Amino acid sequence: MSSIHKIDSPTIPNERIYQNTTGTLMMHLKRAGVRDVDTIAEQMDDLRQQQLSEGIYSFDSFSCLGSDASSPIATSLNQAPHDCVIWSTNLYLGLNRHPQIIEKVVDAVQRFGTGCGTSAISGGMNILHKKIEAKLQQWLGKESVMLFPTGFTANMGALAALCQENDHVLIDEESHASIRDGIRLSPTRRWISFGHNSIEDLQRKLEFSQRECTGKIIVVVESAYSMSGDICPLAELVALKRCFNFLIFVDEAHSFGLYGEGGRGLCYQENVIDQVDFIASTFSKAAASIGGFVTTERRFVSYFQWSSNAYAFQACFTPADAAAVLAALEVIETSPDIARTLHEKNAYMRLRLKRAGFDLRSSQTPIVPIYISDTEKLLKICFELYKRGVFSVPVAYPMVGANDGRIRLIVNVRHSYEQIDRTVDLLDDLAKEFELFNAKDMRTPSSLSNI
Amino acid sequence: MSSIHKIDSPTIPNERIYQNTTGTLMMHLKRAGVRDVDTIAEQMDDLRQQQLSEGIYSFDSFSCLGSDASSPIATSLNQAPHDCVIWSTNLYLGLNRHPQIIEKVVDAVQRFGTGCGTSAISGGMNILHKKIEAKLQQWLGKESVMLFPTGFTANMGALAALCQENDHVLIDEESHASIRDGIRLSPTRRWISFGHNSIEDLQRKLEFSQRECTGKIIVVVESAYSMSGDICPLAELVALKRCFNFLIFVDEAHSFGLYGEGGRGLCYQENVIDQVDFIASTFSKAAASIGGFVTTERRFVSYFQWSSNAYAFQACFTPADAAAVLAALEVIETSPDIARTLHEKNAYMRLRLKRAGFDLRSSQTPIVPIYISDTEKLLKICFELYKRGVFSVPVAYPMVGANDGRIRLIVNVRHSYEQIDRTVDLLDDLAKEFELFNAKDMRTPSSLSNI
Repeated sequence: MSSIHKIDSPTIPNERIYQNTTGTLMMHLKRAGVRDVDTIAEQMDDLRQQQLSEGIYSFDSFSCLGSDASSPIATSLNQAPHDCVIWSTNLYLGLNRHPQIIEKVVDAVQRFGTGCGTSAISGGMNILHKKIEAKLQQWLGKESVMLFPTGFTANMGALAALCQENDHVLIDEESHASIRDGIRLSPTRRWISFGHNSIEDLQRKLEFSQRECTGKIIVVVESAYSMSGDICPLAELVALKRCFNFLIFVDEAHSFGLYGEGGRGLCYQENVIDQVDFIASTFSKAAASIGGFVTTERRFVSYFQWSSNAYAFQACFTPADAAAVLAALEVIETSPDIARTLHEKNAYMRLRLKRAGFDLRSSQTPIVPIYISDTEKLLKICFELYKRGVFSVPVAYPMVGANDGRIRLIVNVRHSYEQIDRTVDLLDDLAKEFELFNAKDMRTPSSLSNI
Repeated sequence: MSSIHKIDSPTIPNERIYQNTTGTLMMHLKRAGVRDVDTIAEQMDDLRQQQLSEGIYSFDSFSCLGSDASSPIATSLNQAPHDCVIWSTNLYLGLNRHPQIIEKVVDAVQRFGTGCGTSAISGGMNILHKKIEAKLQQWLGKESVMLFPTGFTANMGALAALCQENDHVLIDEESHASIRDGIRLSPTRRWISFGHNSIEDLQRKLEFSQRECTGKIIVVVESAYSMSGDICPLAELVALKRCFNFLIFVDEAHSFGLYGEGGRGLCYQENVIDQVDFIASTFSKAAASIGGFVTTERRFVSYFQWSSNAYAFQACFTPADAAAVLAALEVIETSPDIARTLHEKNAYMRLRLKRAGFDLRSSQTPIVPIYISDTEKLLKICFELYKRGVFSVPVAYPMVGANDGRIRLIVNVRHSYEQIDRTVDLLDDLAKEFELFNAKDMRTPSSLSNI
């Protein structure tokens, strides 16, 4: 690439490779005013290569046999696979390995072929996609459903179209990147964060917006948060509609299929569907496929079809993926025991971790966060876990705040109690080994009193 | 939805439902300063419902048996399927129906399960994804390859990360929405369109940018354009690097798999890969699956992993989709006769259409545009085609300029010569029936002289 002027990038000192993630390095470079993409890219590549060679860069890791509760895991440097219990996927119900679903996918590929070849507005959908729409319409009771190729682009596409120039969009500070990118793509100029799950702070911001906003007020939340495992106080949120005039957009990515009768999600469980204006979710987590949807009034769907680039200009998800979604919805509806078992395993793991002294903060869902604010310890503990047969990735900036690192253990119904015990025991050992007892995040008196 | 103040929307007069698409209506509302999403949505829904009931809204149509050269097509209002030759999909090589590929997908689903459950940086990939990366790296010879869940988000994610605050981004005026959304998401403040395929205009803009730009200059083109079937003059484009200092980003969505030795695309065919800094493409067209990739220097991949939300925060495409891509790449490489047959059918159809007097302008690829600037005729001709067993959708704003409507006929190797003949004959009949002969776009002397 002759046209790029190369800048010599000094080698990163060895101690720094344990004190930074590539994400925090990127933040430091930005804060230092580095705007040149060559320099940023060189520095990040340098850190990545060094961390890869030290074994602590886990973001290139992959499963050799596909996602599951356990699988051999390899990295791009060390291709020798290493058997691990896997805690990093959101396949809560383990439906990616459900024989009945796999059988239906096989049948669909044979009948419908491998790809759709175009977007929904150009006839890319087939009867499987329409059956998913109909099922979700019946499940959630809203007028219309529209499908997107991914959950990310469902949020992004709908919000990019919904939010108008003079609107105020109020989002939880833990909101997913897809929500932020949707608002960034919209013409909205006012985008206000409120404290995570704080109805009090939201109320203050609504008071401000009610005075100042000349357009609509749109509140965007997730029913369950991906990085903390927290649940949104949906009933309190919708109660604010008595005092304020606003629209609610709820992303059910981490609750759809897990909560509510027949897996209909938290809006259904909390009986607030009628007061929630837009419900979105992904099919890549509980439904073990790919794709996403938004359900709302028909007129919004008529509008989104033409104003969401992600709808009009992306090919539909494939027949195999559609068949997987459809079969998963059927299993979710007819086998409530799967979600029940998941919740039992989640409760068991949480109890064991709390007994061992880990502070799980306010998390509730099958996303179990192990907070380790010291980046060096976070990276080293993740690597030790991997070496001892437990795989997850360190979660650091930009996934979470820069000093709010954690390891997420995402419970999957296919995790055995033995795998849970083994993982907790290992974390207990590592907590001692790395002296996490003394860190302010861990084993606090308040967490012990919660048991 | 009690919180939304409903505005009475007057019924759209019957003559207007033939003079507008929902896309042009949206543009008119925006130009008229309507900023209220309720009003926009109501008006668009009103038009959609009326056009659906008249049969001229085809954007909800779907194939009953999955995408192919022909399939029964139904609409959401009229579920009675109707056998059609289908011209709206980009499945150029018909690989979605290739027995060997289907067999490999079936095998992959049985071995790897249905979904990945998380993003690439959290271990969502499996060995199939890594094999795709390796294959593309070997094919195109660049340092690194990164996969995205869709082609749209590959363009969007890479450009959102690449383009910096002080850069000038120069894009062809026919650029795809994914390119525009990527730049919108980036901090870039200067985004300059140049005339479609005009190296002359690009040179003028480069002269300006070379004087004014304090960051980098990035030129984004598509090797083949989705709406016109035009091919980008890549050799002339890279020759500008002798005089100007800029990066080139090429989207090969509509050429990858079709052109160049082993289907490597137009950059390969034109021998310009070394001068092109970023090559992106989708797997949803020739490769008959879903997903996309970007290939470039390793350092950019190290940077994009953390700065492309679409990479870090989207679940990977599924094992079924990955197996379809991998098997398709193999077939593309080993069966050059498929692309050859496609080009022969494309040439045959073009010849027949030109002989019938249709002006195909500068199009060359298997995307054959039939220009009909009068919206009423465009909608009515599409409906007549459907009634007589030929399906495509009208392409209107925002897909193309507001007065630049067309029907795209996208040749698929599985279209038979009989289906091509039938379609051309029908278009010939309809051209007479709707008096297209007199319209300025059609049957011009210049088009006749091209035969």
